[in-house]
Amino acid sequence: MASTADNVPTHRQAPFNEPNLDEVPITDEEIFMAHVGGKLSVELRSPIDTQRDLSIAYTPGVAQVSRAIDNEAALVNKYTWTDRLVAVVSDGSAVLGLGDIGPRASLPVMEGKSALFRTFAGLNSIPIVLDTQDPDEIVETLVRMRPSFGAVNLEDISAPRCFEIERRVIEALDCPVMHDDQHGTAIVVLAALKGAMALQKRDLRDLKVVISGAGAAGVACANILEHAGVTDVVVLDSKGIVSFHRDDLSEVKQELAERTNPRSLAGGPAEALSGADVFLGVSAGKIDESLIASMADDSIVFALSNPDPEIHPEVASKHAAIVATGRSDFPNQINNVLAFPGVFAGALDAGARRITERMKLAAAEAIFSVVADDLRADKIVPSPLDGRVAPAVAAAVAEAAKAEGVA
Amino acid sequence: MASTADNVPTHRQAPFNEPNLDEVPITDEEIFMAHVGGKLSVELRSPIDTQRDLSIAYTPGVAQVSRAIDNEAALVNKYTWTDRLVAVVSDGSAVLGLGDIGPRASLPVMEGKSALFRTFAGLNSIPIVLDTQDPDEIVETLVRMRPSFGAVNLEDISAPRCFEIERRVIEALDCPVMHDDQHGTAIVVLAALKGAMALQKRDLRDLKVVISGAGAAGVACANILEHAGVTDVVVLDSKGIVSFHRDDLSEVKQELAERTNPRSLAGGPAEALSGADVFLGVSAGKIDESLIASMADDSIVFALSNPDPEIHPEVASKHAAIVATGRSDFPNQINNVLAFPGVFAGALDAGARRITERMKLAAAEAIFSVVADDLRADKIVPSPLDGRVAPAVAAAVAEAAKAEGVA
Repeated sequence: MASTADNVPTHRQAPFNEPNLDEVPITDEEIFMAHVGGKLSVELRSPIDTQRDLSIAYTPGVAQVSRAIDNEAALVNKYTWTDRLVAVVSDGSAVLGLGDIGPRASLPVMEGKSALFRTFAGLNSIPIVLDTQDPDEIVETLVRMRPSFGAVNLEDISAPRCFEIERRVIEALDCPVMHDDQHGTAIVVLAALKGAMALQKRDLRDLKVVISGAGAAGVACANILEHAGVTDVVVLDSKGIVSFHRDDLSEVKQELAERTNPRSLAGGPAEALSGADVFLGVSAGKIDESLIASMADDSIVFALSNPDPEIHPEVASKHAAIVATGRSDFPNQINNVLAFPGVFAGALDAGARRITERMKLAAAEAIFSVVADDLRADKIVPSPLDGRVAPAVAAAVAEAAKAEGVA
Repeated sequence: MASTADNVPTHRQAPFNEPNLDEVPITDEEIFMAHVGGKLSVELRSPIDTQRDLSIAYTPGVAQVSRAIDNEAALVNKYTWTDRLVAVVSDGSAVLGLGDIGPRASLPVMEGKSALFRTFAGLNSIPIVLDTQDPDEIVETLVRMRPSFGAVNLEDISAPRCFEIERRVIEALDCPVMHDDQHGTAIVVLAALKGAMALQKRDLRDLKVVISGAGAAGVACANILEHAGVTDVVVLDSKGIVSFHRDDLSEVKQELAERTNPRSLAGGPAEALSGADVFLGVSAGKIDESLIASMADDSIVFALSNPDPEIHPEVASKHAAIVATGRSDFPNQINNVLAFPGVFAGALDAGARRITERMKLAAAEAIFSVVADDLRADKIVPSPLDGRVAPAVAAAVAEAAKAEGVA
């Protein structure tokens, strides 16, 4: 059981039974009504009301601008919208917790993502959903479309295909590319863990972290935690601890096994969690209360599976000092929206051609910095609606990009 | 020389020397300033201000909508923006009069086109410019992107590739597809010719029409005029009259030769224009005043090359009864914007899977109908800014689609 620093509540955090949606529950009808006709529109930055407007925005005036770009290619960034345009690209193969529902059914999610780019970072964004799940075809299609956008947010692409696709798209395109299910999640998890560390006056380097899930988010979290200085990470998949004791590992998991599990644990969740400091759930698998109880004092539980956390936060908080979920109706929502708008805005601001590990670490630090002076066990990350976050992240990411010379 | 019905001025129309841009001339600086950051933005149809908004537009609420579409695919039309989204697609191979300037330099034109879709038809539209000019790759890319949009406006693709590409994209996609440089031009030309016929109390069937240009617009104009009942069309390319007398014809021009030139003329512009009723210029080639003078009485000159008409309208009007250009600073502007917003809106309104010849003819009739009661020699088509046009075209196109059963 947890015994913690004075300012850290041990067993309970905020009142979990009171949803912080300030009004009545959201009904299905309300959700569907809000989606009729879609959530986005393309608008003019200035209206075409007169013959003069038409002659400027279209022929004959526009020919001047096209000619200028033909003469000096870089002017496309100045005189078109592409420089601030993020394509949200999905094949619909791993949409939320719904799985492989295909490109059409994924569209409401992608529109939502584009809406968040506009809302939090002032970026233009269009959903591009592809009727292919072939990595070669996805990469090839984005290469052909390259002049149409300024950056690519890959979204809801299933593992392990997402690793290859992201790597190849990054190699093929001279612009910022990020698979948000991997790195958006990882950045916010690291930010939240920094918050927890500051609150508990502990150091990341001393943590034993267990990650449940070896998919997109699990792999990316393992990577960013390693880069941030965490030395003891154990990853669980549905078969147990990812380790050299096993002979059923995919290529991605073999790589994970090389970089994690320093104590060479074998077994399953029980062996991994006994005495661990952090449980990070990024799969749909449930975790038993007794296992959370078996963790070290001052334990930290991030049960991020949506909509059903790996363990109910109220149950987890009986044993853990700090609990976070992916849900908006509990405290400490680990929501990618804290990261991706600012990450892309910063990369585009800097003219970066890559989103590097250093830029991701800077993003996590920036998210943490917003709440650093105001930490509580039920507030280790800012609210997803906190308007300070995206500008802070963008500034930090742009600075990191410039420092690293990827701009 | 022209001798015409009472209400038709013969030699001069409106005062050509006074540009109808109501203010001072447009400067380059004004044009470039209006393009900084591009002309479009993606906006939210309703804002995300609260946790509740976020929970509806994004997780967890959006999952309901994705699940519904997964269960019933057609709901994608109701709950996403794609049903009213036109992709403006170009490879930058034939941009305005600028030629093959490539996808990036074509972007300002495509943004302008998207802006006009919004302005005149209330449609969403995104520019998609492709870094390939290979027909196979263009078709394949649009097939893969199909779930991302509701219709395709092909734009500024060079002839003869544009014919093959349009045909193949129409075959491959189950949605409205139109190459506007072909059919938008053809529709408005037919509308203008209907206006001229009504004014002159003549019949299309009696006309001798000469089309200068056998590219995208020339071929499409020949087609639509034939469908509208014109029986005597002669097409000129840079080598002269397109006819079986020649042995240098491409496949497209061989087809043209089969359907045109009923009097089996041979020779060049002089042979074609002598005694002709209509000159329709859709190439960059100049035409000498003496040739216009050689046309029949009451002649009609559409000199549509932009920015430099085949013959200056002031010169043409010395000999022709009715003169039109593609320019906004002379009367009778034959501008595609009169057609494409309403054509796509009507096709999408009707849920049409094709844009048929009958729908195009209906569009031309609708454009004409807007000015039918108010025709003058200097007003055979509505102004591009006339807000009545797109709704009239959309209604007529939707009705034609339904009548034809393509909806």
